[in-house]
Amino acid sequence: MIIDIHGHYTTAPKVLETWRNRQIAGITNPAEMPKASELRIGDDELRESIETNQLRLMRERGLDLTIFSPRASFMAHHIGDFQISSTWAAICNELCFRVSRLFPDHFIPAAMLPQSPGVDAATCIPELVKCVEEFGNVAINLNPDPSGGHWNAPPLSDRHWYPLYEKMVQYDVPAMIHVSTSCNPCFHTTGAHYLNADTTAFMQCLTSDLFKDFPTLRFIIPHGGGAVPYHWGRFRGLAQEMKKPLLKDHLLNNVFFDTCVYHQPGIDLLTRVIPVGNILFASEMIGAVRGIDPETGFNFDDTKRYIDAAHIDAEERHKIYEANARRVYPRLDAALKAKGR
Amino acid sequence: MIIDIHGHYTTAPKVLETWRNRQIAGITNPAEMPKASELRIGDDELRESIETNQLRLMRERGLDLTIFSPRASFMAHHIGDFQISSTWAAICNELCFRVSRLFPDHFIPAAMLPQSPGVDAATCIPELVKCVEEFGNVAINLNPDPSGGHWNAPPLSDRHWYPLYEKMVQYDVPAMIHVSTSCNPCFHTTGAHYLNADTTAFMQCLTSDLFKDFPTLRFIIPHGGGAVPYHWGRFRGLAQEMKKPLLKDHLLNNVFFDTCVYHQPGIDLLTRVIPVGNILFASEMIGAVRGIDPETGFNFDDTKRYIDAAHIDAEERHKIYEANARRVYPRLDAALKAKGR
Repeated sequence: MIIDIHGHYTTAPKVLETWRNRQIAGITNPAEMPKASELRIGDDELRESIETNQLRLMRERGLDLTIFSPRASFMAHHIGDFQISSTWAAICNELCFRVSRLFPDHFIPAAMLPQSPGVDAATCIPELVKCVEEFGNVAINLNPDPSGGHWNAPPLSDRHWYPLYEKMVQYDVPAMIHVSTSCNPCFHTTGAHYLNADTTAFMQCLTSDLFKDFPTLRFIIPHGGGAVPYHWGRFRGLAQEMKKPLLKDHLLNNVFFDTCVYHQPGIDLLTRVIPVGNILFASEMIGAVRGIDPETGFNFDDTKRYIDAAHIDAEERHKIYEANARRVYPRLDAALKAKGR
Repeated sequence: MIIDIHGHYTTAPKVLETWRNRQIAGITNPAEMPKASELRIGDDELRESIETNQLRLMRERGLDLTIFSPRASFMAHHIGDFQISSTWAAICNELCFRVSRLFPDHFIPAAMLPQSPGVDAATCIPELVKCVEEFGNVAINLNPDPSGGHWNAPPLSDRHWYPLYEKMVQYDVPAMIHVSTSCNPCFHTTGAHYLNADTTAFMQCLTSDLFKDFPTLRFIIPHGGGAVPYHWGRFRGLAQEMKKPLLKDHLLNNVFFDTCVYHQPGIDLLTRVIPVGNILFASEMIGAVRGIDPETGFNFDDTKRYIDAAHIDAEERHKIYEANARRVYPRLDAALKAKGR
């Protein structure tokens, strides 16, 4: 089985965006604020938006199952207050849940959180509880910068985040560390902010002893870990200067990287540098880079081709495609086993 | 000849730091503000600080010449106002100039600028002029985030920077795009902020048409280009989505990467992905990562070993070690030729 641990619902029916725009308008003009119940999307619309997009490509590429979360760039936690984020997160999470019900063999949900700049992280717990207990979510997406590029939240090692970590540990759900849209003109969202956040999050873990406090907490750093594997020597050297343990002992029981790296040399570096047990297959399809690579004739984000061509053996490939995901996402494994998969 | 294009004066005599601390104290207590003339460092002290450190390692490693600039993390443009930065830049640049006079065969200077958050970039021009015309500087270091991790300056493509670019083009000096200390607790200086800035700067160039306005402007993105070569497919794909030309035409006449990547797999990726004409040898020695890699038994920052072991031929190696530097830094080439080198 091939599990893609990183897919977002980037193809939701247009009425979702229209509703969101009305919600944003309602922040300054409360008379325009729509009710959640005014958003109506039928099962047929959901089904079509998936069948013609993600599911079509999954079938073409031979992917079996996607861990499916709301569109990352639309989380936009910087917009409005907690109540705005809370309503928006509930809507987006419910849609991913409904997709997982419509296509139970192909999609399993992961939740966005109703984060809001400066707000206690514990306020996200009710949505997390609902998504895990009622919607069968197997993971969450945690935004280390709810400001959208101003980076004024505490580092991930700060106690600010601990209430969330306690709940994650209790449920045994991992977090993908994933920012949203940049509203800072310095940072292009998918070309700079995403990769910077990946590198930043890893370094926040490296400089701290977070995983001493939470030995079973697990983070997935997406987009191939940002700059981290390419600079693995730098990070090993910095950890050594700081008298930290070797990275494999200090971080690699808790930190994992996905394979959203859109060319063969990048995947070759990833599989050469990072232990195979820490690499999880993903494509972030349909996402930031949708075109066909003129150098290969295939889609940039068809990452399965790179994994298939990487210099790893069948057992290693099985870990990347399936076994690691089952280990890092125990609720995914349990859901699959309950169906005899 | 082997030219290291990226060395900082990280080993200056302690009195420099002491003076700087007095200057910082003087911002809030003007009675304590030291005069520049109160800083006295003799030639013997300078000589010893270099001979026992950078020059010793250059000899051990077989490096001939270093483009030498003030310590990056000490630029700290966020501290004080323009006058504070101006005095500090003048002091630091003069020290690097003096090092180049003491060791004319081994060091040639590059200038830090007296940047200050929110201040017109043109205010940096007098220091640039002095450093080029009187001190023989062959390049500048340009900080794209003088705030130190708050990223509130305009992107490098903004007209804010154009007065500097005009002067750079007139003198035909390139800029290394290099941030300084992070005062944002989210960003570790050398493990996150430096690499993020590299990726950010590249993407600012990619999304703009800066090099249409300045066809001969040249930027060096240090630290192996941050996350860029590892994600080269992503950047090619993003450029394609934006209907930009191929990156080789859009950026690679103007943007270059150094080899400050501290392990063999990273250098192998760099030389596989980036055209060899855009790669310039560098080690940033003595810098952020000073230890010995237990996996190799050699210093992490002994990057010549990785270039020597890379799968490139002798002509390509010559370009990385020398020919590209002469082309990208024409004033370096002229200075060498004037000495018959």
